[in-house]
Amino acid sequence: MDSMAWVEPHEKKSTFTQVKVPTITSPKGFTASGLHAGIKRKRKDLGMIYCEVPAAAAVVYTTNAFQAAPLVVTQDGMKVDGYMQAILVNSGKANACTGEPGLQDAYQMRQSIATEMGLPAYRVGIASTGVIGERIPMEPLTRAVPTLVEQLGKEGGDPFSQSILTTDTGVKVVEVRFFIDGKEVRISGVAKGSGMIHPNMATMLAFMTTDAVIEPSLLQTLLREVTDETYNMITVDGDSSTNDMVVAMASGMAGHRNLTPEHEDWLTFQQAFAFVSKELARMIARDGEGATRLVEVEVKGARTLKEARQAAKTVVGSSLVKTAVYGADPNWGRILSAIGYSDATVVPSHTRVWLGDVVVVDGGTSAIYDEKLARKALEQSVVQIKVDLGAGKERATAWGCDLTYDYVRINASYRT
Amino acid sequence: MDSMAWVEPHEKKSTFTQVKVPTITSPKGFTASGLHAGIKRKRKDLGMIYCEVPAAAAVVYTTNAFQAAPLVVTQDGMKVDGYMQAILVNSGKANACTGEPGLQDAYQMRQSIATEMGLPAYRVGIASTGVIGERIPMEPLTRAVPTLVEQLGKEGGDPFSQSILTTDTGVKVVEVRFFIDGKEVRISGVAKGSGMIHPNMATMLAFMTTDAVIEPSLLQTLLREVTDETYNMITVDGDSSTNDMVVAMASGMAGHRNLTPEHEDWLTFQQAFAFVSKELARMIARDGEGATRLVEVEVKGARTLKEARQAAKTVVGSSLVKTAVYGADPNWGRILSAIGYSDATVVPSHTRVWLGDVVVVDGGTSAIYDEKLARKALEQSVVQIKVDLGAGKERATAWGCDLTYDYVRINASYRT
Repeated sequence: MDSMAWVEPHEKKSTFTQVKVPTITSPKGFTASGLHAGIKRKRKDLGMIYCEVPAAAAVVYTTNAFQAAPLVVTQDGMKVDGYMQAILVNSGKANACTGEPGLQDAYQMRQSIATEMGLPAYRVGIASTGVIGERIPMEPLTRAVPTLVEQLGKEGGDPFSQSILTTDTGVKVVEVRFFIDGKEVRISGVAKGSGMIHPNMATMLAFMTTDAVIEPSLLQTLLREVTDETYNMITVDGDSSTNDMVVAMASGMAGHRNLTPEHEDWLTFQQAFAFVSKELARMIARDGEGATRLVEVEVKGARTLKEARQAAKTVVGSSLVKTAVYGADPNWGRILSAIGYSDATVVPSHTRVWLGDVVVVDGGTSAIYDEKLARKALEQSVVQIKVDLGAGKERATAWGCDLTYDYVRINASYRT
Repeated sequence: MDSMAWVEPHEKKSTFTQVKVPTITSPKGFTASGLHAGIKRKRKDLGMIYCEVPAAAAVVYTTNAFQAAPLVVTQDGMKVDGYMQAILVNSGKANACTGEPGLQDAYQMRQSIATEMGLPAYRVGIASTGVIGERIPMEPLTRAVPTLVEQLGKEGGDPFSQSILTTDTGVKVVEVRFFIDGKEVRISGVAKGSGMIHPNMATMLAFMTTDAVIEPSLLQTLLREVTDETYNMITVDGDSSTNDMVVAMASGMAGHRNLTPEHEDWLTFQQAFAFVSKELARMIARDGEGATRLVEVEVKGARTLKEARQAAKTVVGSSLVKTAVYGADPNWGRILSAIGYSDATVVPSHTRVWLGDVVVVDGGTSAIYDEKLARKALEQSVVQIKVDLGAGKERATAWGCDLTYDYVRINASYRT
């Protein structure tokens, strides 16, 4: 009971397979494309995902008070019937804080796809990422739309993944496969995000596709729940953006019976969906601007789930913890200090901290440990910090990265 | 009314004089000393302030759940009658998260001064700053106490100021003088703090001395109010520490009538006291680890005072704003984004942002401005960011610094 080992909770075995070469177009019904339209100087900057049938859709949006124009437009369209058939995404300019003209640009983006594809405008979602406050050059964008549509295809997943990147160092794609009613179901996801990343969405975009059969409202509930324990548990720099959006689209082409919580394979779907979300979230944290290491903070012994999440996010977000990880300095005092100001209930006499498997804090004060082993735990590419608050039974995990010289370099000169 | 100029509120003219060579021992009754006891390798690490009479005292403490041992001991003593006669401070080790042995060390520190000075133990305050989780080497500390006491004197202000520093690049001292009932009154303050600095106290210590005549309870109320608008409005890295403490001691030797809010010079005293606090707070922010610039964020047009403070602190604490200031990049989108996630009420169509005197945002979107002038505003040693939220009448100011390569360097290798 009172051993010094971190005890994992009992978890149901996963019933899905992760695909080695994932692509967003793998689920039945989906195609995609991506190209360089001329919004950025050289790299791909415009992409789209298309579903051959209206897809049951779910979307979560940033809570930032300055919500960017594309979010307003997408929300507007989603009100109609919860189905989405295409989503157009640009990088380079965020179309945030651009006032009424920016909003008109966003509606025009939506219309350009609707017209080209012969779809009702409300079935088209749009998303943008890039510099805040600058308008999107609409002329090159609209000129590129016919080509973008022409290039739609199963092989378009990779160009799409590239087209949504900003300071990201690479594409982020995950795919899993599993069976429901004996039919194969696929869930794929692609994300972007590197800076301005913080809970309650992040400067991040994620798009998930599946051929599962599910109603929009249920998909929405699931997406919101899963977002709270995945995308909303990552932080790079504590800055939440104006443009965050996660979109899930389900084509319903896998051919199984409609998924509801009463379906015997509901848990399988839920787990697979959460897995894709979590892996994308981890990839975003791992690719944090300038980061050299992924930091995973697991908290247990919390009084409430909210406090568990708050404590985990505070530790992973602390600049002093982040720099200590960068320097591989097992300065556990910074971890305790962060817990201490997280507002989570802590019982110091029952608090323990592990770096990897090394117990460095026991009873709120230094444990006897091997400094070399503790340092080694911080030199891993995935650094694991585990905390037992000693105050209850709830658990949560948050993901972040170290704070390095390159973070400063990237952000001191982002626009120049 | 709707001009693009930032309008300052009407303020009462200050009725105090700032001293050019300030010292903590200037108010009547106070002496101090500071020396190298051997807690740090070379630099001064032990200091004390002494008042020849019991001084009316007020103290505010960190809200961190892991409150360091010296705070527990000082709080314990202050319960008795609210008077303090001596305070002993060490740097190098914070004596935080050191468990029961650390608490015993703290009581022993207090007793060493009480014995040496012939004072009741409860009249002695103690404070510590430095690495969390490491115990203070008590043998060299107690051995140094007789010398520390012997060296007490009016000229001891400077060695004291030095003895409390950690990563600070210099001492922080402020002094003002003014008249009450025709008698000269002095208020001096000395502070330390550079990293782990964030509202609701910071890794900071501040000690204020005055010869004003005032009751402990009233001084306590004043200190708490002033702390909320000064020390609690600074942030370096978002990390609140285990050891923060601000102590104010009033010897009552200036010879005027007892100060109460009914006294005709109460406002004079209040203003002078707030000025010393604000200047020390600014000095701490200016000396933030690795900082090259002080950043001052003024918010007006807030719905409530709390929201004004929250918005100002969020902008000044944003890593992306901080790196943009370092790079002198007038990337106002980051400022709007920070306001947007601060949870303060914002009316985008009435939101304005100034960099220095340059309006860069008007109505929640880009104003027409000269990029060169905006950049110049960010190249000042004191960078002024002003925001009108357009939602009400409340105002607040927060202070911070830029985020530089040196912040990372200092904190990646703090203990090594």
